[in-house]
Amino acid sequence: MDGNLPSTTTGTGDQIIVHGRGTCDMKGGIAVMVWLAQRLAAPNRDITWVFYDCEEIEDTANGLRRLAADHPDWLEADLAVLMEPTSARIEGGCQGTTRFDITTTGVAAHSARSWLGHNAIHDIADVLERARGFDARQIEVDGLVYREGLNATLISGGLASNVVPPSCTVQINYRFAPDKSGEQALALMTELFEEWTLQLRDLSPGARPGLDQPAAAAFVAAVGGEPRPKYGWTDVARFASLGMPAVNYGPGDAGKAHAIDEQCPLADLDACVDALERWLSS
Amino acid sequence: MDGNLPSTTTGTGDQIIVHGRGTCDMKGGIAVMVWLAQRLAAPNRDITWVFYDCEEIEDTANGLRRLAADHPDWLEADLAVLMEPTSARIEGGCQGTTRFDITTTGVAAHSARSWLGHNAIHDIADVLERARGFDARQIEVDGLVYREGLNATLISGGLASNVVPPSCTVQINYRFAPDKSGEQALALMTELFEEWTLQLRDLSPGARPGLDQPAAAAFVAAVGGEPRPKYGWTDVARFASLGMPAVNYGPGDAGKAHAIDEQCPLADLDACVDALERWLSS
Repeated sequence: MDGNLPSTTTGTGDQIIVHGRGTCDMKGGIAVMVWLAQRLAAPNRDITWVFYDCEEIEDTANGLRRLAADHPDWLEADLAVLMEPTSARIEGGCQGTTRFDITTTGVAAHSARSWLGHNAIHDIADVLERARGFDARQIEVDGLVYREGLNATLISGGLASNVVPPSCTVQINYRFAPDKSGEQALALMTELFEEWTLQLRDLSPGARPGLDQPAAAAFVAAVGGEPRPKYGWTDVARFASLGMPAVNYGPGDAGKAHAIDEQCPLADLDACVDALERWLSS
Repeated sequence: MDGNLPSTTTGTGDQIIVHGRGTCDMKGGIAVMVWLAQRLAAPNRDITWVFYDCEEIEDTANGLRRLAADHPDWLEADLAVLMEPTSARIEGGCQGTTRFDITTTGVAAHSARSWLGHNAIHDIADVLERARGFDARQIEVDGLVYREGLNATLISGGLASNVVPPSCTVQINYRFAPDKSGEQALALMTELFEEWTLQLRDLSPGARPGLDQPAAAAFVAAVGGEPRPKYGWTDVARFASLGMPAVNYGPGDAGKAHAIDEQCPLADLDACVDALERWLSS
């Protein structure tokens, strides 16, 4: 498997795997939608198929955001199914995420006369200790258990190898369970890192699973399986902010999204088609 | 003082300051040498004037190193005077310096599922704690007090803002008193950071002041003033490795070397010319 375009397959029978960029995120989900759209002659529900771009990049470019702003009536519905890769299992809600920078400030000096300066990299140790000491818990929300995480993801500091560093910046990413609003998550971080100034980069609230609502419960009953919590942020949070229940359900392993060996089991595509057809036909 | 070339002066009388790049490091010292070379008709000692390039960059390019390798007999002498900026005061010996990298290794994972990875930036906190907890002492060597320093000078780590960082590297600079050989300094660092692998970048031993040796003592007597220890590494260490006493003595404040406002008091030039003429004529 040197190249990955055009897509290719390996395996036989029910072990066939489709390989290639996008097979998992999002061509797999799109293939299921297109297939259903041309096969469902008389669906039991009104369906709006939504294909949109720029879901991966900054929020201002997100196609679903533009649709919600320009044509809010198109999105009025009982349930949204996000066909993000979930290995053909229902994943409810999503975690929220916030990223922020913390910068420590020192005083530059020649490192041969370091007592004339103050070392900002040494100071960042306190920030790192605070981050790794955070009690990242598992939190049950509406019956699903979300696992939080707080990580320093990027760090850089210093001017030269013989200069006491005057500044050091660490970026921190907090993934939080949907029991908290974005504001609550940020307040928690502000309290945790109370000695420092948080320079906010982004803040996206999560979404509670809401699987007890009638439309979602009917979907769960038709698809079957034990719903899992969604880790990572998805556009279900956007539907949640519109007051609509939404679930993640699509072919492919999210862990393979964007991977060099991105791939999707053909069985996942079949499972999604079958389950959605059952839900939309019965 | 917007530009700094050509050099310009401010002040009057004995307060005149010469401003401009290199006035302190090393044009000031060179000016003194050239002036003496044309003025000393009958010096009381054999003098070898040495002007060499690339003292500031990597050791392999150092002109004095090449001279010592190609013409070792040219450097056979009783005393070497390094005209590095010392504000026209004798600075004995020099500190040693060593730089090394320490890298922590983690396991990359999506930061939304951080328990699948291991955070290398969090691990670097232990290295930073160790560095800042080091007992950087003042150590007397042959009557001069050297002040040590251990500093993390550069740090970088992480792949992306949503990835648990798989590696983080910090560069550490240890400035050590000349009571230790380079090997002893490195052994001390290896012991201090025993849990990690030190990737050595450079190791330059210091030089003991040796001001009690006859030629150096005569120089001190002629120049006057209380000798100070040299902070920072200079080529006196090279002479020390050749078994020759050497001192630092030159016009200008070392703290202004390479500075945007580099400058040298004219009085320093006069003081150096007078003192060296006294030493070389009496």
